[in-house]
Amino acid sequence: MQNTDNAKDVIVGVVGLGLMGSSIIASFLIAGHQVIAVAPLPQDLPEAYQRIYKQLVHGDHSGLLSKPIDSYISQVIISDDYSLLQNCGLVMECVIENIEIKESVFNKIACAVSKDAIIASNTSAIPISTLQKLVPNPKRFLGIHWAEPAYMTRFLEVTCGEDTDIAYAEWVVELAGLWGKEPTLLKKDIRGFITNRLMYAVYREGLALVENGDVTMEDADKAFRYDAGSWMTLMGIFRRMDFLGLQDSLVAWNAIYPKLSNSETVPGVMQEMVDKQARGIHNQKGLYPYTAEEAEQWEKAYTQFNEDIFKLAAQYPSPVTEVK
Amino acid sequence: MQNTDNAKDVIVGVVGLGLMGSSIIASFLIAGHQVIAVAPLPQDLPEAYQRIYKQLVHGDHSGLLSKPIDSYISQVIISDDYSLLQNCGLVMECVIENIEIKESVFNKIACAVSKDAIIASNTSAIPISTLQKLVPNPKRFLGIHWAEPAYMTRFLEVTCGEDTDIAYAEWVVELAGLWGKEPTLLKKDIRGFITNRLMYAVYREGLALVENGDVTMEDADKAFRYDAGSWMTLMGIFRRMDFLGLQDSLVAWNAIYPKLSNSETVPGVMQEMVDKQARGIHNQKGLYPYTAEEAEQWEKAYTQFNEDIFKLAAQYPSPVTEVK
Repeated sequence: MQNTDNAKDVIVGVVGLGLMGSSIIASFLIAGHQVIAVAPLPQDLPEAYQRIYKQLVHGDHSGLLSKPIDSYISQVIISDDYSLLQNCGLVMECVIENIEIKESVFNKIACAVSKDAIIASNTSAIPISTLQKLVPNPKRFLGIHWAEPAYMTRFLEVTCGEDTDIAYAEWVVELAGLWGKEPTLLKKDIRGFITNRLMYAVYREGLALVENGDVTMEDADKAFRYDAGSWMTLMGIFRRMDFLGLQDSLVAWNAIYPKLSNSETVPGVMQEMVDKQARGIHNQKGLYPYTAEEAEQWEKAYTQFNEDIFKLAAQYPSPVTEVK
Repeated sequence: MQNTDNAKDVIVGVVGLGLMGSSIIASFLIAGHQVIAVAPLPQDLPEAYQRIYKQLVHGDHSGLLSKPIDSYISQVIISDDYSLLQNCGLVMECVIENIEIKESVFNKIACAVSKDAIIASNTSAIPISTLQKLVPNPKRFLGIHWAEPAYMTRFLEVTCGEDTDIAYAEWVVELAGLWGKEPTLLKKDIRGFITNRLMYAVYREGLALVENGDVTMEDADKAFRYDAGSWMTLMGIFRRMDFLGLQDSLVAWNAIYPKLSNSETVPGVMQEMVDKQARGIHNQKGLYPYTAEEAEQWEKAYTQFNEDIFKLAAQYPSPVTEVK
């Protein structure tokens, strides 16, 4: 069984060097791991180094680094050669949400690593129980779902598939302490894991209200920014109920429950977005309109906000009894 | 028709001096209004002054005041005499969510004010269309739903009932600029308005997962604190989709939609809370366990967090193009 006594000595592999993969690599490097970064798409190779470097600069600027950037970046090997993964204790797959592509990637990883390695997927759309059927050692396969930017959020979902040995999931949860995360552990592989499952319930309701002409997207976003956004980072949803005092609950529950959307059909607007290849702020086609300048301003604001909220959250650890 | 040229000159009435009412009074005072505060429960009278004063101290400490506290507190008259409301242009009802009690309060307000006054309810549980049937001038009745602490959140929901003249709702929206709010305007009176409607969709899903043993409350809260909590204050839910890039959406939507809870029955745990008169951190009985000390630490943390997130949000105005 793995142990975490020398957690930093675990060599970590990352396969898939897109935005998410690079960001995860930055997180591993900042945590002190040596990282083998494999690009399944050769065209990602030239950009990957620069992307990771840029993220380390951001991490440095945010006070996450204790040594010069070069001493972190020197710990990553970027290549398209899977055989370099041979000494990795953990390999993270971060390729697109396509099961055939993932299968081909798992095969290559499995051929390269030792039987003791743990293989993890960053998927948020495909069940872990499905993916683990594609590897030779399903007990050692699990989900590790990161949020962007991986080096600057504490979010991490560790998910077991049906065949995962929970001891390996627990090992990852421990290791995640080194990565500065506040991981959740899902023993049963539910659709959407925790965060997407809960968020899609909001999306369903929000889109139903918008499609019905009851609410504008702008107003729904405003309500979330200034109501939920004023306590979410501190307490989450159930603690919030304890703050609200629970007394009006039954009246409100009984009135609202039967009105909530039960739609099982994905709203037309999402199909529309797919049809016109909308990538939101990334190509200035989305639910909202964007000029190139506005998209850039949003990107900048998000980068800055990430840093600000990361630092703010650090002042409110859990349990709150540790608060200054 | 009301105009907002001399918005500060509008005398505002507040009926109901509980936690929420006092907090709304503090917000009106900070905005520069003269306030008539009426206590339907005489026992609230002695405490009300102190409560409002304490909130003004908090507002001062947070940089919301430009003059000494005394020049604000001197602008409120606290009484149990409804007739003092006679010159108010707007009266906010903030009593408990009980329709008989609200009816009696509306009668007393309506007898005191001029026909030109606007009466608003802070209800979040009773439809505005229902409440407005209880006043003589339904066109001038609407919902203004605040979040706690009212003087330190930008959240405000303005809701029309069936018979509300939208011009009055728009007047309130304009006035809310003076109060430092980012109001939403709901032209149609949907159950739960915007924020509760959306949040109850999350609560339903979260409680279903917890009741089913899939997820712990702790993990659901952790996922929200560190995922949603890391962007919610900046962007809300639809803008978030634009950030995520929309491309994996259909796969995830189609997989998750049919799995979401469609329960129309309020979960047993909420009835349990009501039965044991649980008031969460307020009486140390809630969804989570609390010692008196922990409850106090949570209260303190929340007060501080409110101030921190309020200031942080101020750096990210909407539209984001105004960002520094």
